[in-house]
Amino acid sequence: MIKKPIIETCLSPALLHLFDVKDTNVIIIDIFRATSTITTALYNGAKAVIPVAEVSACIALKDENPTYITAGERDGKVAPGLEFGNSPFEYSADFIKDKTLALTTTNGTKLLHMVQDAHEILIGSFLNIQALVDYLKKDGKKVLLACAGWKDRVNMEDTLFAGAVADLLKDDFTIECDSTRLAQNLYLKSTECATTLEFLVDSNHYKRLSGFGLQQDMLHCTTFNLCPVVPYYNGKEIVRK
Amino acid sequence: MIKKPIIETCLSPALLHLFDVKDTNVIIIDIFRATSTITTALYNGAKAVIPVAEVSACIALKDENPTYITAGERDGKVAPGLEFGNSPFEYSADFIKDKTLALTTTNGTKLLHMVQDAHEILIGSFLNIQALVDYLKKDGKKVLLACAGWKDRVNMEDTLFAGAVADLLKDDFTIECDSTRLAQNLYLKSTECATTLEFLVDSNHYKRLSGFGLQQDMLHCTTFNLCPVVPYYNGKEIVRK
Repeated sequence: MIKKPIIETCLSPALLHLFDVKDTNVIIIDIFRATSTITTALYNGAKAVIPVAEVSACIALKDENPTYITAGERDGKVAPGLEFGNSPFEYSADFIKDKTLALTTTNGTKLLHMVQDAHEILIGSFLNIQALVDYLKKDGKKVLLACAGWKDRVNMEDTLFAGAVADLLKDDFTIECDSTRLAQNLYLKSTECATTLEFLVDSNHYKRLSGFGLQQDMLHCTTFNLCPVVPYYNGKEIVRK
Repeated sequence: MIKKPIIETCLSPALLHLFDVKDTNVIIIDIFRATSTITTALYNGAKAVIPVAEVSACIALKDENPTYITAGERDGKVAPGLEFGNSPFEYSADFIKDKTLALTTTNGTKLLHMVQDAHEILIGSFLNIQALVDYLKKDGKKVLLACAGWKDRVNMEDTLFAGAVADLLKDDFTIECDSTRLAQNLYLKSTECATTLEFLVDSNHYKRLSGFGLQQDMLHCTTFNLCPVVPYYNGKEIVRK
């Protein structure tokens, strides 16, 4: 009998020290909206996305590379000194094809830099869930679903996505930790709602982003398989497989 | 309009720094089995339960207080130097009435010492859930449901209990954080199973404890309202309200 690889889930960056990421495919999950926007931009032909934690670092990158597009938000608005925001709708094929996007994200970038020892660091969103799952099955390595959360707090949408991935992988992998089981049950509960977004209307992030009028963004970010690409971090930038 | 008090949930002691426990009723949750055993012992007439983190501290307490009963396990067996184990069935009324129990628990005791600034520190288990909920409603203070987990990992049974409490409090409190919503959804999903324990058969702790033959313990620990008491920590020991 061939032993199945395991899946584990880390619900917050503050719990990451409990997991060994060596020889592991780590999936970075920041549904609203970093990993959804990265997936959208790469699907639409972006050459690469460079994740940066700070606005100042993003501006410095642009100074060195004037063709880069800089993006990032503070409190729902384009951050001073940057050109564009975090909405996936800003990165249509017409605009982003063959360009490099320097994207400021707080929770996701922090997490990405914490898992440098991983076998591979992949980007997960509902937009590319099946492409990602197909890749993980084919690769057959141990998987860690790493939720970015919100300032180290566990959130609904990242946990829900982890659960959806676990549910799609369950026949080929062994679910090893209760966090994965919990996420999977959350996902199964969500399927009772008409849409994934409907399940999230009470969540903290939904409330915050709908206060900025970003309901359409969230609808996009919770749509399955609109952007079938497998983005991964090559140690410097995020590119397509 | 009177503003409702809020409920928050901390899924692991490693996330506790994210929560402000001042003016808060903190519920310590360690379903398998510390808080269930404490609740059982106090319901059966124990004078007090003194939670200690280390076996050596438990032995030292007995040296100073020869009438104390010492208890604690390592790997499913009574720890060397102690007298009894962690099973709720060891603490019948015949045995424990009017006695003081010095109980060694790792996850629960650690958490208890981390929340000393709380308004009150209460002990939660399925065995006393309604008594606890009634007390929390009457007291009307902000609530933090603090899951002990397992070596800082999130676990199913503690999260499930937090969700059950949140569901019982939802009309009188405001659910403030996604961890609480997640726990509540887990609880609602669990009600599809014939018993609470059936929902937990895949969980890490179920597997570990059933390996020690402790299925009856777990059945007891997942039974609602067998022991309607409200245990709280008075800064030194856990006693009944």
